[in-house]
Amino acid sequence: MRRVALIGAGLSRFGVRAAGFRELLAEAGRACFASVPHLTPKDIEGLVVGAVLPERAAFQSHIAPLAAETLGIQPSKLSARTEHMCASGTAGIRYAYAFIAAGLADIVMVLGVEKLNLPNMGEAVLNMGTGVDRDWEACFGLTAPPSFALAAQLHMAGYGTTEEQLAHVAVKNHTHSSKNPYAHFQNGVTLDAVVCSRMIASPLRLFMCSPITDGAAAVILASEERAKEITDKPVFIRGTGQAVHGFSVSSLDPDYASWPAMKQAAGDAYAMAGIQASAVDFAEVHDCFAIAEIIAYEELGFCSKGEGGPFVMEGRSDYGGDVVVNPRGGLMGCGHPLGATGVAQAVEAFWQLRGEAGERQVPEVHIGLTHNNSGMGEHVVMIYGRE
Amino acid sequence: MRRVALIGAGLSRFGVRAAGFRELLAEAGRACFASVPHLTPKDIEGLVVGAVLPERAAFQSHIAPLAAETLGIQPSKLSARTEHMCASGTAGIRYAYAFIAAGLADIVMVLGVEKLNLPNMGEAVLNMGTGVDRDWEACFGLTAPPSFALAAQLHMAGYGTTEEQLAHVAVKNHTHSSKNPYAHFQNGVTLDAVVCSRMIASPLRLFMCSPITDGAAAVILASEERAKEITDKPVFIRGTGQAVHGFSVSSLDPDYASWPAMKQAAGDAYAMAGIQASAVDFAEVHDCFAIAEIIAYEELGFCSKGEGGPFVMEGRSDYGGDVVVNPRGGLMGCGHPLGATGVAQAVEAFWQLRGEAGERQVPEVHIGLTHNNSGMGEHVVMIYGRE
Repeated sequence: MRRVALIGAGLSRFGVRAAGFRELLAEAGRACFASVPHLTPKDIEGLVVGAVLPERAAFQSHIAPLAAETLGIQPSKLSARTEHMCASGTAGIRYAYAFIAAGLADIVMVLGVEKLNLPNMGEAVLNMGTGVDRDWEACFGLTAPPSFALAAQLHMAGYGTTEEQLAHVAVKNHTHSSKNPYAHFQNGVTLDAVVCSRMIASPLRLFMCSPITDGAAAVILASEERAKEITDKPVFIRGTGQAVHGFSVSSLDPDYASWPAMKQAAGDAYAMAGIQASAVDFAEVHDCFAIAEIIAYEELGFCSKGEGGPFVMEGRSDYGGDVVVNPRGGLMGCGHPLGATGVAQAVEAFWQLRGEAGERQVPEVHIGLTHNNSGMGEHVVMIYGRE
Repeated sequence: MRRVALIGAGLSRFGVRAAGFRELLAEAGRACFASVPHLTPKDIEGLVVGAVLPERAAFQSHIAPLAAETLGIQPSKLSARTEHMCASGTAGIRYAYAFIAAGLADIVMVLGVEKLNLPNMGEAVLNMGTGVDRDWEACFGLTAPPSFALAAQLHMAGYGTTEEQLAHVAVKNHTHSSKNPYAHFQNGVTLDAVVCSRMIASPLRLFMCSPITDGAAAVILASEERAKEITDKPVFIRGTGQAVHGFSVSSLDPDYASWPAMKQAAGDAYAMAGIQASAVDFAEVHDCFAIAEIIAYEELGFCSKGEGGPFVMEGRSDYGGDVVVNPRGGLMGCGHPLGATGVAQAVEAFWQLRGEAGERQVPEVHIGLTHNNSGMGEHVVMIYGRE
């Protein structure tokens, strides 16, 4: 199997955007090309696009060829869209990764995109519910916020996790995103503001949830040989793991505060990379809700089970701590344009590992991890490194 | 790069079905498991699902985990949905193929599914239009039938292709599907019925078009080592090629009767397989409209440019001819449940190459080809063989 590296990365501005899918794709794609001198759209052999809702938000399928045409790319080896709800972007990166690792292509661009905000925001909110089981759960109101609220309640009951600890995740990530010029939220947030914000699904309040955001992200992957020809700072994919333990909430082990599929995905990725959790310098984890980041500390092995709350309170997931979690601001600070999120996590890994993350640069980084999930039972982990 | 083989295959009944996505996935998936003795859902490490319209037809994204749960699979290495409009199924096969070829997994199931028929058929027809450029072409009525009609008109003007030749494609494929118990149409059709059927987009009449069909298909892919342990009749993926020359019709070379992206995809697949077009014993080609099959003969290299009309009239694409094209009945006879089509083509290749195609078995087969497109500018080709 050939080694594969990221050689370029770019983002659109995340937020409530007047742009559609085409404009967001163009913005991120062009920024990505600008990051790789001398590489042009003609060099790209494949294009994979992660996206969830173009059919509902723009009455548009077939968005991979649309993206190719928009960017002047004519894929000669690979063209596809990937969808795995909130993990659609990482599913796209893994398609390109496998294709290059197998020797089927040398240079592939991966885009992630979502246009979620609509003139009718009721429709936009409803669209987010397509990711859960329509027949058996969504129809009864068991969409994402109440599902993760169940996990939060069990975590509080079982491990003594507090509302203040949950709020601290939001404060940390909004502080990080205040240093990210691409983020949806750049003003930070106080602990008081978080704990006084509107209740969404108890105990999850508004600022403990990721917002409805438009945006796009892009990376270019290359075989080791081509990567080294093109850049002297390639960022290698060192490991990957994915596990799905169930779709409907009712299919999962009722201990919703434990996510064994995440532990399994991380374990496989660590084994492939030949590292332990302690080697991770920074991690972009899927903080769709504050409880998800606390459980992520535990299942990724950054702390023991049940200790996620104290872990964030003691600053161990912040700059100067054990591992900097969500330096770009995560889903809560940057926003969560579904298909774009996994790719945006890879963009941050690229910038951090090259020392190009500006004000939010994590010092002395060697290993970065990204974690993308699309429910409590579906997880995917990537490990990146400069070597 | 490791060699990869199909080791199992199954279909749902194609047609206007009372079933939804979940039931269709279950039907095809279970049939697929039944084709591989001793293999159970627990042996499956990955699941990829090709589908286009679950968000519109069933308000359901995230259909890969839904399929996994339905079939009792817990993917431990790969889970994704692929979408590339009419080529979504083949995009799924290629994801699994690359993943196994790279050594990232050993056994992966690929499902393709679509539920297109809705209580409101006006909505069902509109949904088909999501595959073309919404902003610049679909909004003016340039959906798939008029696009392919442009190709047909130019082919008639440039090469003297006749309405009777177009009709002959439909007669052949409906004759083939009359021997396929899974097909949407099993009664055959006469030349008179085709040329007297309702005009859809001149010169394409109703029976020269594929219908709106519900259905699902499944295959299981395995590494060569595992495949040989599991079955003594593996069907190997010998080659693959994909090329995208444009998305909107207006971006393509205005000679719409020539499809260079198809020629390129086929050329790459032949080169990878180390064969010439003349080695192909049977081909499942994307006859979404009759003109598409005629142009496919030419671009796949079965005959010279412009000779596609006489090629079908002389029986050279039928049993006893140069190459049996669409033995299962193609999209016109079997129906075209978008995401299922590419996988159903692979199922036919599996059955034909194992000598399990019953009444429609092509004699002495060694090499089979499948061709899936999602527009005149987007093509993907696979080559299968027993060795």
